[in-house]
Amino acid sequence: MPKTNDPPHVVIVGGGFAGLTAARSLARTPVRVTLIDRRNHHLFQPLLYQVATAGLSPAQIAAPIRSIVRKQKNIDVMLGEVTGIDADRREVLLDEVRVPFDYLVLATGARHSYFGHDDWEPFAPGLKSIEDATDIRRRILTAFEKAEWESDAATRTALLTFVIIGGGPTGVELAGKVVEIARHALRRDFRNINPAAARIMLVEAGARLLAAFPQTLSDDAKARLEALGVEVVLGKPVTACDADGAVIGGAQTRARTIVWAAGVAASPAAHWLGLPADRAGRALVDGNLAAPGHDAMFVIGDTASVKDSGGKPVPGLASAAKQQGAYVADAIKARLSGRSVGPFAYTNMGNLATIGRNAAVVQLSKIQLTGFVAWLFWSLVHIYFLVGFRNRIIAVVDWIWTYLTYDRGARLITGGQSAKKPVGPAS
Amino acid sequence: MPKTNDPPHVVIVGGGFAGLTAARSLARTPVRVTLIDRRNHHLFQPLLYQVATAGLSPAQIAAPIRSIVRKQKNIDVMLGEVTGIDADRREVLLDEVRVPFDYLVLATGARHSYFGHDDWEPFAPGLKSIEDATDIRRRILTAFEKAEWESDAATRTALLTFVIIGGGPTGVELAGKVVEIARHALRRDFRNINPAAARIMLVEAGARLLAAFPQTLSDDAKARLEALGVEVVLGKPVTACDADGAVIGGAQTRARTIVWAAGVAASPAAHWLGLPADRAGRALVDGNLAAPGHDAMFVIGDTASVKDSGGKPVPGLASAAKQQGAYVADAIKARLSGRSVGPFAYTNMGNLATIGRNAAVVQLSKIQLTGFVAWLFWSLVHIYFLVGFRNRIIAVVDWIWTYLTYDRGARLITGGQSAKKPVGPAS
Repeated sequence: MPKTNDPPHVVIVGGGFAGLTAARSLARTPVRVTLIDRRNHHLFQPLLYQVATAGLSPAQIAAPIRSIVRKQKNIDVMLGEVTGIDADRREVLLDEVRVPFDYLVLATGARHSYFGHDDWEPFAPGLKSIEDATDIRRRILTAFEKAEWESDAATRTALLTFVIIGGGPTGVELAGKVVEIARHALRRDFRNINPAAARIMLVEAGARLLAAFPQTLSDDAKARLEALGVEVVLGKPVTACDADGAVIGGAQTRARTIVWAAGVAASPAAHWLGLPADRAGRALVDGNLAAPGHDAMFVIGDTASVKDSGGKPVPGLASAAKQQGAYVADAIKARLSGRSVGPFAYTNMGNLATIGRNAAVVQLSKIQLTGFVAWLFWSLVHIYFLVGFRNRIIAVVDWIWTYLTYDRGARLITGGQSAKKPVGPAS
Repeated sequence: MPKTNDPPHVVIVGGGFAGLTAARSLARTPVRVTLIDRRNHHLFQPLLYQVATAGLSPAQIAAPIRSIVRKQKNIDVMLGEVTGIDADRREVLLDEVRVPFDYLVLATGARHSYFGHDDWEPFAPGLKSIEDATDIRRRILTAFEKAEWESDAATRTALLTFVIIGGGPTGVELAGKVVEIARHALRRDFRNINPAAARIMLVEAGARLLAAFPQTLSDDAKARLEALGVEVVLGKPVTACDADGAVIGGAQTRARTIVWAAGVAASPAAHWLGLPADRAGRALVDGNLAAPGHDAMFVIGDTASVKDSGGKPVPGLASAAKQQGAYVADAIKARLSGRSVGPFAYTNMGNLATIGRNAAVVQLSKIQLTGFVAWLFWSLVHIYFLVGFRNRIIAVVDWIWTYLTYDRGARLITGGQSAKKPVGPAS
């Protein structure tokens, strides 16, 4: 336990956008901060689809949390997996130790959810971590390798069929990149197959892509993806996934590579605190993002269920997570100086999604952009947000080269068992 | 089986320096080449230690074999694991298929060898593949993370002790980089420990480092490593490795991170062909690098035991592997046109090893270089050899940035179980 003359101890669990912003916003506050994460790195998740599609290397979108907060003297970083919270004793539980706190910020994020069909996961992996991304990259690249030497035409077609489930930004961005791999990056690399003939399906159970965007942008994204060669399937739910493929709108589609971009489930923060949760497992917090009845324990980011002023759920975006992180830092500062703080108010910063190589859709409060202009805007925003995250110049040089040369430099198949399984020739 | 009017079929197993050079040297020869590897990428192995020490990302030193040979129309690339050779029927065996050949080139390389102590491997991993490198990177970085929160002083010391076994170029280069990580890259990132106080030991059973180099260069390397802060231990064999550390020259040294750079064992090419092998498992080939009695089956690179004109073994260097690859291509061309070819003659291109950040030792036939001049030479040679391997400009830009900024951008802990195990705080 801290001695009474110690500064208050703020424990933040999770070094994503929400937790890291909270930690950095406490830089000049007389508190001691411990930031706990089970990874040593902060991940720039909006670009994770680029790792899954071999455009960027993991190190280009991830940076050690220690480096990011190096200059902030009041932070300790701890690599460890939290297993629970003892709210009464105000302690964070890890496997072998307990970490006492005066203020707690849970920002543990979300994983993908299969809506009760967890048995689909081995066949339709989701995209949340670097390991997820390199696994999906391995699956996509291995499918082409196997197709090259597959003598059975139906199996070859299944190997060259890629199903992306979920028409949100992640699904749209993945589909746009997978089709780019097939049509451009791999185009001249195979002898027996034509990678450009690969079938890339983007499947959405709802009526349109990018449901968080205005209808016109959804339509624009669909038209552009189709122009790139993506088969967009709307209004058809997926009711089964296995090693052979997926059942889409009641029809079996043979596909060896399926990627899940359809749903997320919050981490068990609500469970740790004994809080009620919404359908996706997100903790229901009060207007100050605190656990009801525990005003020194906050839950923020993708693991919290927060409403905006209009009563609509705050989306799981980096900008929303950062706003919540900054808010709880302010709330802690206010508490320390005896001030009060109003409830959290979400500012909608807009929605962005790229479509393939040089198009995007952008929705700001009143402005809508499409095509190349939107893509330029998207690029500037992402470069801007890399500030303070990784050396901006290196990242930008890398990106420009990757873009100009069409070089998918990260086309590596690593890990997994598939890489070791022989792929048969047609001889 | 090929039809009689088909061009002869050359099957090359292994896409390392030897196999890839053989394949490329057959570009304008009227043969059909199939290049089989269990990985989809060629690895620039001389820089693998940089991945293990977080200086470079895997994608910076590896490139898809398919991309490298994209423009060579007579090559098929196959991802698969060879399980044996049927020499009588002239077929390469993979799990599910057989690939017939007219000429066979086995260039399957080597793995590390524990000299009969394979039980040491979990505690002292070696460095041959990308997975090896990211595993070692994870171990090194995790040790610092654990030390930061370890309350027991003796355990903390063990966590901050790094033992590198083997004083060849790999061991020397690893030691120089690990000490750089501790003294520079991590210097300001921890609160409770001083990474610069880490103990980095380089242990060699023989009388000197870099036994393949002249004595003066060995002495220079030792002095420079010691100046950087490496503890060089000579003439002391390692007789045990376990989770607690290593027994070095009879004395127990507590260390949580051990890296094995002491010995290699050839892949089972000799076994596949029923050939006699040397102590390291390398196939004993004839003067034409062919299996005695099977003049259409060649064994080259690290998996072959080859002697130079003076009767000394040809070393396991990239330049030696490439010479052998080019030689068998010539031998096959000669055979096809009814010419004869003299025995393989090895040209010693010299030895290079870097020491830390801006020094190296270089031994060319009559020239010896040390220090910064040697390092410049080393850098130029490595940039030169990246030609045709990956876009040279990107690699060089990456490297210059990494060098100038001291940025170990690839400091990621990924995969493995350790990353998920909690690391306890001292509270």
